[in-house]
Amino acid sequence: MDGLALTLTVLDYAAVAVFGASGALAAARRKHDIITFGFFAAVTGVGGGTLRDLLIDAPVFWVLRPEYLVVCLAAATAIWVFGWGRGRERLLLWLDALGLAAYAVVGALKAISLGVAPLAAVVMGVLTATFGGVLRDVLAHEPSVLLKRELYVTPALLGATLFVAVRAVGQPELAVALGFLAAFGVRAGAILFGWRMPGFPGRAPPD
Amino acid sequence: MDGLALTLTVLDYAAVAVFGASGALAAARRKHDIITFGFFAAVTGVGGGTLRDLLIDAPVFWVLRPEYLVVCLAAATAIWVFGWGRGRERLLLWLDALGLAAYAVVGALKAISLGVAPLAAVVMGVLTATFGGVLRDVLAHEPSVLLKRELYVTPALLGATLFVAVRAVGQPELAVALGFLAAFGVRAGAILFGWRMPGFPGRAPPD
Amino acid sequence: MDGLALTLTVLDYAAVAVFGASGALAAARRKHDIITFGFFAAVTGVGGGTLRDLLIDAPVFWVLRPEYLVVCLAAATAIWVFGWGRGRERLLLWLDALGLAAYAVVGALKAISLGVAPLAAVVMGVLTATFGGVLRDVLAHEPSVLLKRELYVTPALLGATLFVAVRAVGQPELAVALGFLAAFGVRAGAILFGWRMPGFPGRAPPD
Repeated sequence: MDGLALTLTVLDYAAVAVFGASGALAAARRKHDIITFGFFAAVTGVGGGTLRDLLIDAPVFWVLRPEYLVVCLAAATAIWVFGWGRGRERLLLWLDALGLAAYAVVGALKAISLGVAPLAAVVMGVLTATFGGVLRDVLAHEPSVLLKRELYVTPALLGATLFVAVRAVGQPELAVALGFLAAFGVRAGAILFGWRMPGFPGRAPPD
Repeated sequence: MDGLALTLTVLDYAAVAVFGASGALAAARRKHDIITFGFFAAVTGVGGGTLRDLLIDAPVFWVLRPEYLVVCLAAATAIWVFGWGRGRERLLLWLDALGLAAYAVVGALKAISLGVAPLAAVVMGVLTATFGGVLRDVLAHEPSVLLKRELYVTPALLGATLFVAVRAVGQPELAVALGFLAAFGVRAGAILFGWRMPGFPGRAPPD
Repeated sequence: MDGLALTLTVLDYAAVAVFGASGALAAARRKHDIITFGFFAAVTGVGGGTLRDLLIDAPVFWVLRPEYLVVCLAAATAIWVFGWGRGRERLLLWLDALGLAAYAVVGALKAISLGVAPLAAVVMGVLTATFGGVLRDVLAHEPSVLLKRELYVTPALLGATLFVAVRAVGQPELAVALGFLAAFGVRAGAILFGWRMPGFPGRAPPD
């Protein structure tokens, strides 16, 4: 395995672990039992990649390699054992930003490798990065992360787009690096400085 | 491409555009940014057909032809630029009725063409026509269109059933026309005259 | 068809009918029309097995055999006609426990038969048993069954795990019996005695 492949594999498992932990936190918020911790960790950790694999008709990654599920369960156990605290929440927010950036690139890369067209590959990057969190929120009956004004889809979209564009001009390593850094950078800006995009300026329709 | 195929293609793109616009309106209601407009437009525009393709094990249509995504993004941009108004809401309601009728027929037709049994093909028509809107509502954390007493699933079911039945007796063009008109007609009756089906007459279970 | 296969087929249809009925009850709660009864019955009845089939890349069972849909529609009609009552709710609760236990085993069995790894097969059992109810609650805009503290995922997990473990040591009939009884027994304990798992003992993160 060369350096790029190794980097991608590490990023992939790290993203599953981080998203798994954020799923377990949703269960912790409701003081739920360890089984529900595991369920939410698994759904959040592998949900985005599962949707990507179904859409591009690839075998679902964790069905082939159940060790991804073990990673989710380990993340759930870690949250259960070490609990939650102000510092940990902060840590998780940053780990989540890393996971988001990693998944935006990994998702688009897998799609491109299987011959998916560039625009659809960008969408796969975005879905891989965001859909696990969306599933977590829907199952927890909370307004989804999509509805927050915080930048979340935007960094994923930027990272996946940059990756696909730079890769198209024949620079795969650079594409991974730029895509990852752009997504992480914009997400970091959103966390640190409250960056957001301008909202719809028009008259809003009533509910 | 003969007349029938051309008609179906036009209906197909038109339905994606219309549902895409209704997704963007959900983002507009929350004064969200342009990226979220695009996300909701895409999910609503292609969600129903995506579920159909996954269920009948066909390649997902917009992964093969990303121009469907472009149509969704154009619809999102149009809502962003031209905004919302009383007249436009009315227009969209009618366009949505056209999209519903088109998708009920197109969804069932694709399933039948791939050898799916008649009853399952009817279900594909209904899911193609309604699931994009359901996804939009679930992601927007709103009660889904399924829960309104307004006729929405019913016209799709009627159109898809008529299409499958008339096609079974060897009249494909007539089947498209009747299925489309029946679905559109019943939906129009619901919009104009508040048609609805009788509700459950029995004692309701408590929550 | 030998005794085991016959038992499994009966359990399979019975589970679809029972979950279908619980979907129709969600429509009854809102005094909805017969079409919505059928829609919720179908989504709840076949939702779990559909997700399983998509994940393990098997043809979706009810697309191949639409008689499963007929079973759902029959269940919806039965709820419509016979209505709801204190005794019936109790009956349904127990039928649901039977369905949960049946699906945990049937779901894991189908996955194992298609060569899925043990850990992933356990997950398929759990998803088959629980996802129909989750979909029902999400579409009905209610907090999902996952969020109740009642044991629901736990019996499915126990049953699927026992089934996979006992089958691995070469006892397929015993595996079905033990898996089913363990899942049903724990669910029965939850219903009768309010059994639950200990909740997260740590400090809960704020919303």
